[in-house]
Amino acid sequence: MEKTLGELAQIIDGRLAGEATIMIRGVAGIAAAAQGDITFAVDGHIEEAEKCGASAVIIPNTVENFSLPAIFVDNPREVFIKLVKLFTPPLAIKRKISDKASIGNNVVIGKNVAIMPFAVVDDNAVVGDNVILYPHVYVGQYARIGKGSMLYSSVTVREFCEVGENVIIHSSAVVGSDGFGFVTKNGKHIKVPQVGNVVIEDDVEIGAHAAVDRAAMGSTYIRRGTKIDNLVHIGHSCDIGENTLIVAQTGISGSTKVGRNVTFGGQAGIVGHINIGADSIFAARSGVINDTPEGVFYAGFPARPHQEWLRITAASSHLPELLKKMKKIQRDSGNDN
Amino acid sequence: MEKTLGELAQIIDGRLAGEATIMIRGVAGIAAAAQGDITFAVDGHIEEAEKCGASAVIIPNTVENFSLPAIFVDNPREVFIKLVKLFTPPLAIKRKISDKASIGNNVVIGKNVAIMPFAVVDDNAVVGDNVILYPHVYVGQYARIGKGSMLYSSVTVREFCEVGENVIIHSSAVVGSDGFGFVTKNGKHIKVPQVGNVVIEDDVEIGAHAAVDRAAMGSTYIRRGTKIDNLVHIGHSCDIGENTLIVAQTGISGSTKVGRNVTFGGQAGIVGHINIGADSIFAARSGVINDTPEGVFYAGFPARPHQEWLRITAASSHLPELLKKMKKIQRDSGNDN
Amino acid sequence: MEKTLGELAQIIDGRLAGEATIMIRGVAGIAAAAQGDITFAVDGHIEEAEKCGASAVIIPNTVENFSLPAIFVDNPREVFIKLVKLFTPPLAIKRKISDKASIGNNVVIGKNVAIMPFAVVDDNAVVGDNVILYPHVYVGQYARIGKGSMLYSSVTVREFCEVGENVIIHSSAVVGSDGFGFVTKNGKHIKVPQVGNVVIEDDVEIGAHAAVDRAAMGSTYIRRGTKIDNLVHIGHSCDIGENTLIVAQTGISGSTKVGRNVTFGGQAGIVGHINIGADSIFAARSGVINDTPEGVFYAGFPARPHQEWLRITAASSHLPELLKKMKKIQRDSGNDN
Repeated sequence: MEKTLGELAQIIDGRLAGEATIMIRGVAGIAAAAQGDITFAVDGHIEEAEKCGASAVIIPNTVENFSLPAIFVDNPREVFIKLVKLFTPPLAIKRKISDKASIGNNVVIGKNVAIMPFAVVDDNAVVGDNVILYPHVYVGQYARIGKGSMLYSSVTVREFCEVGENVIIHSSAVVGSDGFGFVTKNGKHIKVPQVGNVVIEDDVEIGAHAAVDRAAMGSTYIRRGTKIDNLVHIGHSCDIGENTLIVAQTGISGSTKVGRNVTFGGQAGIVGHINIGADSIFAARSGVINDTPEGVFYAGFPARPHQEWLRITAASSHLPELLKKMKKIQRDSGNDN
Repeated sequence: MEKTLGELAQIIDGRLAGEATIMIRGVAGIAAAAQGDITFAVDGHIEEAEKCGASAVIIPNTVENFSLPAIFVDNPREVFIKLVKLFTPPLAIKRKISDKASIGNNVVIGKNVAIMPFAVVDDNAVVGDNVILYPHVYVGQYARIGKGSMLYSSVTVREFCEVGENVIIHSSAVVGSDGFGFVTKNGKHIKVPQVGNVVIEDDVEIGAHAAVDRAAMGSTYIRRGTKIDNLVHIGHSCDIGENTLIVAQTGISGSTKVGRNVTFGGQAGIVGHINIGADSIFAARSGVINDTPEGVFYAGFPARPHQEWLRITAASSHLPELLKKMKKIQRDSGNDN
Repeated sequence: MEKTLGELAQIIDGRLAGEATIMIRGVAGIAAAAQGDITFAVDGHIEEAEKCGASAVIIPNTVENFSLPAIFVDNPREVFIKLVKLFTPPLAIKRKISDKASIGNNVVIGKNVAIMPFAVVDDNAVVGDNVILYPHVYVGQYARIGKGSMLYSSVTVREFCEVGENVIIHSSAVVGSDGFGFVTKNGKHIKVPQVGNVVIEDDVEIGAHAAVDRAAMGSTYIRRGTKIDNLVHIGHSCDIGENTLIVAQTGISGSTKVGRNVTFGGQAGIVGHINIGADSIFAARSGVINDTPEGVFYAGFPARPHQEWLRITAASSHLPELLKKMKKIQRDSGNDN
C-alpha cells in the first residue's frame, strides 16, 4: 500500500503544501514516525511535529508557516483516523459458518456472517446479517445478535439477552450473568432468581472482561452509542444512558440509572438505586453514593464538585502541620485538652 | 402459564383478599407491573403498591386496608421468589454429554449431567450427578465437581481443585489460577511453584470473571454458602468463612482468613495475612490493613468504625475553611510560621 | 516419591543435622506440616519451626541450636522452591496437537508442543517449540507465541500480537484487545482504529482476567521478567519496564511509561500519559496522577511519599476533634464566622 501525498490530499479533501509526488507508505504517531510515514498534529503539538521524522504531517487549517510537507484540514485527528483505516488492510475473515462451530435448533442466521471454530449458537437464537463471532463465543438460547455486530473470542451472551446492531464486544466479556441478589434468612443467603435479561442497543462497545448482569426482572439497559472499557461491572437492572463513556475497572451497582453523555473515569464506583444526571463527568476513582444533578463535574469519595475535591485534597497536605499549630495554641493558652 | 389468584394463594399459603378468579399470567416489579401481573411490596412501599398497574399484590400480614386484590403473607419478598420460579419456565437443557464435548481418560461422570459442546473434562476428573457444564468450560485434571453444580460458559476449574455440591459458577470465572508468588533475587522474580488447590464448599456462588487463586501449598477455601460477585479477586491460601458476601470488584490478598457471615461492599480491598472477625460488615471501598475483631461495621481506608469514618469524612469538607481560620489566627497573633 | 533427609541435603547442597535416614515424603508450610514432611523457616520463624509437626526443617546457616532434624542453607526459601518442584510430579501433558484443535492456514508450529482440544491457532500464526496451549485458547492471525510459553484455558492473544519465550498467561487473560480510543463529534463517540499490537517479552507472567490492550499505532510493551497479577488493566500504548510487579486489580491508563523494577500494590490506579521512574514502590490503592522520579516509595491518592501519607492519614483521625477546638477558640474570642 502506497499513495502519493497529492493523492492523499484529494482523498481527505485537504490543502496540500509540499511536493505532491512524495510517497507515503504508512501512518504513525509523531514520536515513532519515520521516512515514508504520514502523521498528524493538533494545536500544542505543532512545534513537535516540525521536528518529527515523518515525510508529511496533517495539521489544522489555522496553522501558519509549517516547514514540513503537510496537508491542512479542519480536524486532523478525525482525518487521520480515515488514513489509519486506509493504510491498515482488514484481516481476512472468512464469511462462512465454520463446520467446527455448533449451531443449535431453530436458530436463525443472517447473510454474510462469520462464525468461527468452536463458537456456539444455542437453540432459538438469532444472529443478524454480517455478524462476526470469533472462536469460543457462546450465544445463549433465545439471545439475539443484531446486524453487523462483532463478538471477539470467548464472549458470552446468555439466554434471552439482546445485542443491537454494530455492537463490538471484546474478548471474554459477559453479557447476562446473574445479578447478585439474595434474601438472607437465618444467616443463609437464598438466591433470588434473575429472570430478566440485558438489552444492548446499537453502536455500543464493551471491553474485555466487562460483566453486564441480567435484571432480576425486566431488563438491564446499555443505551445506544455507549462505550464501556475493560473490567467494568454493571449491576442488575441498571439503565446506562446514551453516548456514555465508562472507563476501565469502574463498577456500577444494581438498579442505578445513568443519564446520557456521562463520563466515568477509571476505577469509579457508583452505588445502587441512584440517579446520575446527564451530561456529567466523574473523575477517576470517584465514589458516587447519592443522586447527582445534570451537568456536574465531580470527583472524590464521597463524590463532590471537582473544585471542592481539589481544595480538600490540597488542604489535606497541611493537616499534620495544622494539628501541630493547634497543639501549640492550646499549650500557649494553657488549655490542653 | 396462568393461575388464578385463588390458586396462587393456596400455593403460597397466604390469605386472599379479592376475587379468587382473577387470572395471573406473570410476575413483575412494582414499577413495571401491568394487568395480568402479580407483584409484591414490603413496608415503605405499600402506598406505591396501591397505585401500581398489577392485577394483584403480595403484601405483609401487618398491612391493614389495602385497596387492590392481594395475598397477605409473612414475608412477601421470600414468597415472591417462589412465584418468580413458578412463572419462569426453566431453559430446555439437554441432559446428555454432547458428542462435541471432550472427555479425557479415567474420567468419572455421574447421572443426568449436561455437558455441552466444546466443554472439556480432562483426565481423572470427577463430575457428579446432575451437573451442568456449559460450552467452553474447562475442568482440569483430577478436579472434582460436586452434585448439582452448574458451571456457565468459559469457566475454568484447574487441576486438583474441588467444587462442592449445588455450586454456581458464572461465565469466565477462574478457579485455581496460580497464586502471585515470587522470590526476588538480583532483581529477578523467580516463580514460587503454586502446587496447592482450591476447595469450594457446597452452596457457593461465584461471579463472572472472579478469580480464586490456588494455594502455594495446601488449599484456598471458599466455605459453605458464601456468595462472590463479579470481578472479585481471592488470593492464594485465603480461607473465606461460611455465608460471607463479597460484592463486585473486591480483592482479598493472599493468606487472609475471613470469619463467617462477613459482608464486603463493592471495591473493598483487604491486605494479605490478616484475620477478619466473623459477623462483620465492611462498607464499599473499605481498605482493610489490619486484623479486625468480630461484629464490626467498618468503612474507609484504612478501615475504621463506620461512625468514625462518617465523622472524618464530614469534617474533611471543612478542612479548607479550617486552614484559612488558622492562618487568620496566626496573622492576628503575629505568629505566622 | 520419597527421599531420605541425607539425599535431600545432597540435592540442595546443605549441611545435615540429624539422622540421614529420616524418610521425607512431602513438602508443606510450617502450620500444616506433619510427620513425613519437610518444611522451611526464615529468621523470625525459627521458634515456631521448632514446635512444628514436620520431620525436618530447612533453616538458615546463621541459626544456632535447633532441636529438630534440619538442613542448614544460605537461603531456605529459595532452596525450598526446589524441593516443592521435586516432590510435585508434573501434570501429564500430552505433547501433541489434539485432533480436536483448529489450526489455520500457513501456521508454523514448533516441536514438542501441546495444543489441547478446542484451542484455535488462526491463519499465519507462529507457535514456538515446547509451547503449551490449553483448551479454548485463541491465538489470532499473525500472532506469535515464543518457545516454552504456556497459555492456560480461554486465553486470547489477538492478531499481530507477540508473546516472548517462557511466558505464562493465566486463564481468560486477554492480550491485544482494542484500546479505549474515541473521538467525540456532536456528542457521538467515533472509534479510533486500534491497529497496533502488544509485545510481551520473555519470562513475563500474566494473571487471570488481565487485559493488555493493543496500541492505537505501534506497540504496547510488557518488558522482560515483569509479573502481572489477576484482573489488571494495561491501557493501549503503555510501556511497562523490566522486572516490574503489578498486583491484582491495578489499572494503568494508556500511553503511560513505567520504569524497571517498579512494584504496584493491589488496586493501584495510574493515569495515562505519565512517566513512572524505575526502582519505585507504590503501596496498595495508590492513585498516581503525575510523573514520579526514580526510587520513590509512594502511597495514597493523589500518590505522595509514603511517610507523608502516613502522617496525613494519622492526622485525619484527629480532624473532627480539631474542628471542635477551632469552634471553641472562635467562640472564646467572640469571632464565630
